[in-house]
Amino acid sequence: MKNDLKNFQKVFSLSRHARLLEGIYSLLSWDQETYMPPKATAIRAEQLSTMAGLIHKEKTSPNFAEALNKLIDLKNGRIKAKSLPEQQKTSLKEWRKLYLRDTALPQDFVEEFSKLTSNAIEAWKSAREGNSFQRFAPFLDRIIAMNRKKADYLGYKDHPYDALLSLYEDDITTQEVSILFSKLQKEITELLKKITAKKQVEDKFLFGKFDAEKQLQFSKKILEAMGCDMEAGRLDLSVHPFSSAAHPTDSRITTKIHPTSLMSCIFAVLHEAGHSLYEMGLKSDLYGSPLGEPISMAVHESQSRWWETRIGQSKSFWKHFLPVLHAAFPKLKKVNLEQFYKAINKVQPGFIRIEADEVTYSLHIILRFELEKDLIAGTLKVRDLPEAWNAKMKHYLGIVPKTVSEGCLQDIHWSMGAFGYFPSYTIGNLYAAQLFNAFEKKHPKWESQVEKGKLVFITEWLKDQIHQHGKSFTGPQLIEKVTGKTFSEKPFIDYLKTKYSKIY
Amino acid sequence: MKNDLKNFQKVFSLSRHARLLEGIYSLLSWDQETYMPPKATAIRAEQLSTMAGLIHKEKTSPNFAEALNKLIDLKNGRIKAKSLPEQQKTSLKEWRKLYLRDTALPQDFVEEFSKLTSNAIEAWKSAREGNSFQRFAPFLDRIIAMNRKKADYLGYKDHPYDALLSLYEDDITTQEVSILFSKLQKEITELLKKITAKKQVEDKFLFGKFDAEKQLQFSKKILEAMGCDMEAGRLDLSVHPFSSAAHPTDSRITTKIHPTSLMSCIFAVLHEAGHSLYEMGLKSDLYGSPLGEPISMAVHESQSRWWETRIGQSKSFWKHFLPVLHAAFPKLKKVNLEQFYKAINKVQPGFIRIEADEVTYSLHIILRFELEKDLIAGTLKVRDLPEAWNAKMKHYLGIVPKTVSEGCLQDIHWSMGAFGYFPSYTIGNLYAAQLFNAFEKKHPKWESQVEKGKLVFITEWLKDQIHQHGKSFTGPQLIEKVTGKTFSEKPFIDYLKTKYSKIY
Repeated sequence: MKNDLKNFQKVFSLSRHARLLEGIYSLLSWDQETYMPPKATAIRAEQLSTMAGLIHKEKTSPNFAEALNKLIDLKNGRIKAKSLPEQQKTSLKEWRKLYLRDTALPQDFVEEFSKLTSNAIEAWKSAREGNSFQRFAPFLDRIIAMNRKKADYLGYKDHPYDALLSLYEDDITTQEVSILFSKLQKEITELLKKITAKKQVEDKFLFGKFDAEKQLQFSKKILEAMGCDMEAGRLDLSVHPFSSAAHPTDSRITTKIHPTSLMSCIFAVLHEAGHSLYEMGLKSDLYGSPLGEPISMAVHESQSRWWETRIGQSKSFWKHFLPVLHAAFPKLKKVNLEQFYKAINKVQPGFIRIEADEVTYSLHIILRFELEKDLIAGTLKVRDLPEAWNAKMKHYLGIVPKTVSEGCLQDIHWSMGAFGYFPSYTIGNLYAAQLFNAFEKKHPKWESQVEKGKLVFITEWLKDQIHQHGKSFTGPQLIEKVTGKTFSEKPFIDYLKTKYSKIY
Repeated sequence: MKNDLKNFQKVFSLSRHARLLEGIYSLLSWDQETYMPPKATAIRAEQLSTMAGLIHKEKTSPNFAEALNKLIDLKNGRIKAKSLPEQQKTSLKEWRKLYLRDTALPQDFVEEFSKLTSNAIEAWKSAREGNSFQRFAPFLDRIIAMNRKKADYLGYKDHPYDALLSLYEDDITTQEVSILFSKLQKEITELLKKITAKKQVEDKFLFGKFDAEKQLQFSKKILEAMGCDMEAGRLDLSVHPFSSAAHPTDSRITTKIHPTSLMSCIFAVLHEAGHSLYEMGLKSDLYGSPLGEPISMAVHESQSRWWETRIGQSKSFWKHFLPVLHAAFPKLKKVNLEQFYKAINKVQPGFIRIEADEVTYSLHIILRFELEKDLIAGTLKVRDLPEAWNAKMKHYLGIVPKTVSEGCLQDIHWSMGAFGYFPSYTIGNLYAAQLFNAFEKKHPKWESQVEKGKLVFITEWLKDQIHQHGKSFTGPQLIEKVTGKTFSEKPFIDYLKTKYSKIY
């Protein structure tokens, strides 16, 4: 029993050391997207690849495996350290799963992949700026080939995509996602048909010239109201908004200033702050163990979409914040709450995912999910991607982008090599909707608080129910624990129907 | 012969890997001083200590030692790889020296030291802000104890300070510095006496309120004129100005905006840019080998002081830049070149080293050198430091600081654990003076270029004569190569006498 504890401490300490290196990797990436001088690109790629190699080495070291194997049989998953409390047993299972995943990939593969994607990010930026798919295509080709190889290394039963999906949400299969997404697509298409038959809402006033500095100041007021601790975080600018956390005390977000759309920056900040609060809400004393880590990308996304859509696009939120916005941009004073609420919830098929409304958003994800599956399966070639993209855009959203920059080059994810990531956006939306039902039960009068600009009680509920538990559960388990019901797309569909029948 | 080359490549590659990690360490430190959220202090200390441990491990690995020992006998320094060109033999000798130095320190000592100093920097900041020596004293006590231990590990003949000094300038002893500094002190005291007997120059117009943004814009114009490539560097703000380079393509500087003194920021930028240009001028293809590294702290300082004092405080520089400054700050238009030149070269004993004039600057260094020697020897106790500081200030400069913040807490160096560093500031000034004589021989009409705002030819001369050679020479060897004369304090004394006899 004493030995179990001692071995557990050893595993924890080795795991924490690797986690520290991952935090350093995060900082290098954050710096690359924010302040790094452009000519440092090549050496930064080497630094990232070096760190990736070191991290992989530590996570797969015989030293770690040996200590872990004393507590849990690495081959069959049987717990040997029977004396440990349940929570620590959960950690052991998770460590084993991660170890098996990490040892599936050879170190030179990991280093090569990191170097490739670091250069691919730069190529993507240039391709997007120059509106040239050719500039990015050779990188994407290599990234897909390496993702296929990755799936082979990781192993899968039915579809190589299963292996990639499991990196971001590991309690759900490609087949299950396909079924879920197809039900969703059917319901959303039907709802969209109803909406587009109605008179369109007016939102012209949200576009034009809005001072960048004032947008940032307004964003900071929102962060403050949310209880985002700016002594443990930062807000900066980058090409594509992202969040990056090295530790609960160092959780940073970025946004971008859209040249003409006011809400772009504000919603990006709400979104990324949702991610950031999740990281800030993890337990520092469990840092480096699975219980100090977020559950999955999809649960992460449930937090960001919660703040972006459920709060940031609610009428009660703007009852407080519209007057603040009026003060920053007096030309909006002619717009009343009702008009503003309708405008920010305008449903209209568009090209850009991160600017999509709540209704069409999932269609953007379903499109990417299908293309990714086909690219990985090899049934779609990279050279045919722009055409396939446009065909699906036409089919699901009825519109076709004129340029690749507002088409298949719009997102950073593929350049980062993150195939399997996109579905978690929509799964996250579904999680958020189901979790929100539980939140409403606990706080039936939440709107009267939010109307006063009070948001911290929401952050506290999320921390209490979700953040502080780390990886004690999988995504679907968390949903069941918090809501008492199994995971389903229904709460999200119900929410959309109720909300948008009032707007349209 | 083929094996020699192969082994050399192996040593180079291992050394380059460790150098990459050092670059990452630099970024972590840079971030800590510029953008890091304050609550991340503790985890950053752990990250730095982890990286320091990894770097030390790689530099002292048996793998590296074995490969190196095939080329040069680690015990006696005899070159075995006789077939290699001279330049590579120079690298071998340097690698051996560094290896012996690095293996002298146990890994846990290195990690502990890094953690201590990372926390000490925060304590120093707080102590300086709160004007409380007590807050910093316990850290300084431990830092000195560890420096003494470090000296023991490194080994020395006469004085433990020799060992520390050699970390920053390794071709000169404590005894030699003492002699040099004592000659210098005598000459400067005499000159200072002459100057203070004369009528003081007027410099009131340099103080007051000057817009921070405009100061930064002006600073960037200077950087541009110097040929500082801002695509391979950055300018940011921090409590104490510093330069930090991870690679010739990522060389960053910081400055600070003084609340009332205009020249503080401008001279800091010139100073740090001198450091930055040295790093940018190193050969990228030799990155990770001694020939791709700067010679020493003192040679580094010769570059920064060159730009700060020899160029930035020259009349010809301001013939071009004063009108630019007039445009930024119209209230200065009443000040002509002659008045301005005298004002920025005003000699007056003051408390703050980095704001000291060229004449009294060395006295600040001599004071620190003597205190450091005594602290390390144990003849001065930490608790007596403020008093000893004040006594020496009185003796050399005739003034006594009222607070510890403008006394012994003013500099970051001790909190960083960098004992032995200060003398390189003055050695650097002496180097700069001697090098400048060689520059003037090659460019007798340099002033007519500088008057037109042309500075790049200076950067090119420095790159050609110094930067690109990396550690091909020691400091004193470099001086002899470039000037044809042995290292001496005389050129500096002559320069001061000539310049200041015209001003006073």
